[in-house]
Amino acid sequence: MSNEKKFVEAITPRDVDFAQWYTDIVKKADLVDYSSVRGCMIIRPYGYAIWELIQKHLDKRFKETGHENVYMPLFIPESLLQKEKEHVEGFAPEVAWVTHGGNEKLTERLCVRPTSETLFCEHYANIIHSYRDLPKLYNQWCSVVRWEKTTRPFLRTLEFLWQEGHTAHATAEEAMEETIRMLNIYAEFCENILAIPVIKGRKTEKEKFAGAEATFTIESLMHDGKALQTGTSHNFGDKFARVFNIRYTDKNNELKYVYQTSWGMTTRLIGAIIMVHGDDDGLVLPPEVAPVQVMVIPVQQHKEGVLEKAREITERISRVARVKIDDSDKMPGWKFSEYEMKGVPLRLELGPKDIENNRCVLVRRDTREKIFVSLDNLGDTIPEILNRIQKDMLVRATQERNKKTYTAKTMDEFDEIITKTPGFIKAMWCGDEACENAVKERTSATARCIPFEQEHISDTCVCCGRPAKHMVIWGKAY
Amino acid sequence: MSNEKKFVEAITPRDVDFAQWYTDIVKKADLVDYSSVRGCMIIRPYGYAIWELIQKHLDKRFKETGHENVYMPLFIPESLLQKEKEHVEGFAPEVAWVTHGGNEKLTERLCVRPTSETLFCEHYANIIHSYRDLPKLYNQWCSVVRWEKTTRPFLRTLEFLWQEGHTAHATAEEAMEETIRMLNIYAEFCENILAIPVIKGRKTEKEKFAGAEATFTIESLMHDGKALQTGTSHNFGDKFARVFNIRYTDKNNELKYVYQTSWGMTTRLIGAIIMVHGDDDGLVLPPEVAPVQVMVIPVQQHKEGVLEKAREITERISRVARVKIDDSDKMPGWKFSEYEMKGVPLRLELGPKDIENNRCVLVRRDTREKIFVSLDNLGDTIPEILNRIQKDMLVRATQERNKKTYTAKTMDEFDEIITKTPGFIKAMWCGDEACENAVKERTSATARCIPFEQEHISDTCVCCGRPAKHMVIWGKAY
Repeated sequence: MSNEKKFVEAITPRDVDFAQWYTDIVKKADLVDYSSVRGCMIIRPYGYAIWELIQKHLDKRFKETGHENVYMPLFIPESLLQKEKEHVEGFAPEVAWVTHGGNEKLTERLCVRPTSETLFCEHYANIIHSYRDLPKLYNQWCSVVRWEKTTRPFLRTLEFLWQEGHTAHATAEEAMEETIRMLNIYAEFCENILAIPVIKGRKTEKEKFAGAEATFTIESLMHDGKALQTGTSHNFGDKFARVFNIRYTDKNNELKYVYQTSWGMTTRLIGAIIMVHGDDDGLVLPPEVAPVQVMVIPVQQHKEGVLEKAREITERISRVARVKIDDSDKMPGWKFSEYEMKGVPLRLELGPKDIENNRCVLVRRDTREKIFVSLDNLGDTIPEILNRIQKDMLVRATQERNKKTYTAKTMDEFDEIITKTPGFIKAMWCGDEACENAVKERTSATARCIPFEQEHISDTCVCCGRPAKHMVIWGKAY
Repeated sequence: MSNEKKFVEAITPRDVDFAQWYTDIVKKADLVDYSSVRGCMIIRPYGYAIWELIQKHLDKRFKETGHENVYMPLFIPESLLQKEKEHVEGFAPEVAWVTHGGNEKLTERLCVRPTSETLFCEHYANIIHSYRDLPKLYNQWCSVVRWEKTTRPFLRTLEFLWQEGHTAHATAEEAMEETIRMLNIYAEFCENILAIPVIKGRKTEKEKFAGAEATFTIESLMHDGKALQTGTSHNFGDKFARVFNIRYTDKNNELKYVYQTSWGMTTRLIGAIIMVHGDDDGLVLPPEVAPVQVMVIPVQQHKEGVLEKAREITERISRVARVKIDDSDKMPGWKFSEYEMKGVPLRLELGPKDIENNRCVLVRRDTREKIFVSLDNLGDTIPEILNRIQKDMLVRATQERNKKTYTAKTMDEFDEIITKTPGFIKAMWCGDEACENAVKERTSATARCIPFEQEHISDTCVCCGRPAKHMVIWGKAY
């Protein structure tokens, strides 16, 4: 392999400068390009193909659970945004304002949607009348805008792509069930499709979504020990319904308010894939979201029969996997490096000797394991190996995450971990926001969530020493 | 049937008030709702499901011809929009301007993209270096904003959904080939998927896209005799490349400008489906874009065995078609009317007598033909009938279009047609913009296109009497 390496321009090693390593991958794997619009990214074909696969997997899960897609306007009138007090306080400081249409000044400013709760509420007030109209299980795929000061591709951009689910229910119980159902779908998707283990839990009051009654989250850990909020699911109770007057007549002909939820996942998932699975040679993609799962590379392709055979094999594999052949005139070593950088899960090498022996060489991107396979069995072997890669990646990511999950009983222990070996820190909390603030000020770690799976680390709050209420997962976050 | 009709609130008859009929369908078939944002529409689940099917069919065709999806920023800095003079003159009067981000006034205004040529050009200038980088065949699915004064759902809205293809090529010939290739794909899609016949042709200089060297179009005719521009494909030559300095080194190491195209289709296609196929009972959907192709309606569903059998059949049909069952407690007549309004291509009625005879009744939405079918053959019969409906709808729409296509040799003939029996008018043109303007002023009809298939209507221009250069298709347009 060392000989091949000369063909590729090296990226910054991951453990030397994690941020630069990330930026290098994002550019060199052709995921993103910058534009002249500050903080907005161009998602290039390879990056967008990953997003399309993420969409496909999520959309299937949404539809299987009865959700329907809709499309809401891009703009929200200022007065509509301001209807729910906490919500507007959370979002107004970071929205983009449209003040002119054509050559005219608008009588009311419009904001470019940062999220669409207010639009969905207005619509629901129009279309929900009777218990027969419930539940409403809507989702929207779109882009939203939040005026961030500092940005990084996929992780924090002025504009990003996402899906936002917005549902309305007859009872508080149903809304709660939906909130948790979608959190579970997110968690299952992250683990089975992205091979990223997550911790499910509730956000503290301080960290919850602007206007929500409760926010639930899945938190994952990146290779550098920082946490990433990977998806959130909010329960609004009847709070927005009261503000927007969304009511229905129940079976007894009584007027009742609906109960609502919202939940979202974004293109930042692509950032998570990079930071959980990537290595010093570039991206490593889980097969489920790899635009190309197998890259066929003919070796000594000028020799008689090699290209023909390679193309025939590619055609055969295309029935069981997303496959491409690179029969360009670049050197094989250069091709190896390029598809390593792009994180293609399996490389298939085929040269004259292989053909003689009716076999080929498969090389796993994740482990670099070389596997010799008979050409007769490719239709069975390749899906099996892709499946194994998918599972192994989750196992390794889980081990890695567990290795970087610590417990702290005192703030001294907490301090030491966060400075020396950053990761998730499990520590008890009294439930007082003052302690949450104190921990943040001292360590810059925040309460990532109060996990559903509680453990008893100690009896007292890590910060103030008073009796503990919850175990909290703390960490520095993206 | 007359007895059933009482269950549905009637819509305005099509020939009484076409505009109101259109609005009625859009609302009553649950395609769209209005929002508090002027001129922006909410696309409801049923309308959005049609759009998803349109996307699926188009996206497949794009990918089969080598195109890749990308995502560009929503915003364009004012200075970037202004780079190409004709382009900015065409679009500046109708863009929305963002002037504030959060609480700060921006140093440069950003417009919300009305179309993304300038962004693609900037990106292409960054990523195209060598002939090996060509062609670039990109497409984007997104929403765009144009500040229209008067709006109508799907046909003309402030914001609409579309796809915009943007390609870059090494030679003028390749760009021209691409322009025509995509026009042909659009035409084939309209005819085979939407069952809407189109006329392919070139736009006049006056009607072409702002900044294009040539614009090609497919034009279709609505039931009221007005034309709808259904899709356009533009050839830019090297005009934008020269402004944005998009160059590559060719095989001889010489620096050359690239040649570009762009092409787009929008949610207005849904408007076209309504206005070509709809009738006094509502929407009529071509099976290819019908979210529900078969609606199963149990009759006397309280009787033993009816619901069970209906559900079993639904399950069986789901393997060959998009099927749903309505087993709610509404009256069958009410259900019949509802799914007629929604344009479901096939209704399947099943009652106790049918079950006794091992058959069911299929009713075609387009012709109201009743077909008795053995329950044993449903797996074969239903796809056959859906296929027949799809084909018949195109045949009828073509006959209708041809019936409303006239020829005029003089302006008197032209006048008479346009006032009495509006439709497409084939008439000769000298090529002078003065005549084009004069026709428009006198009749409010515009040159829809110079069709590829030319006919010789007369020797002289319909307007000025000088020698004719082209046959033009004229019409009043949406």
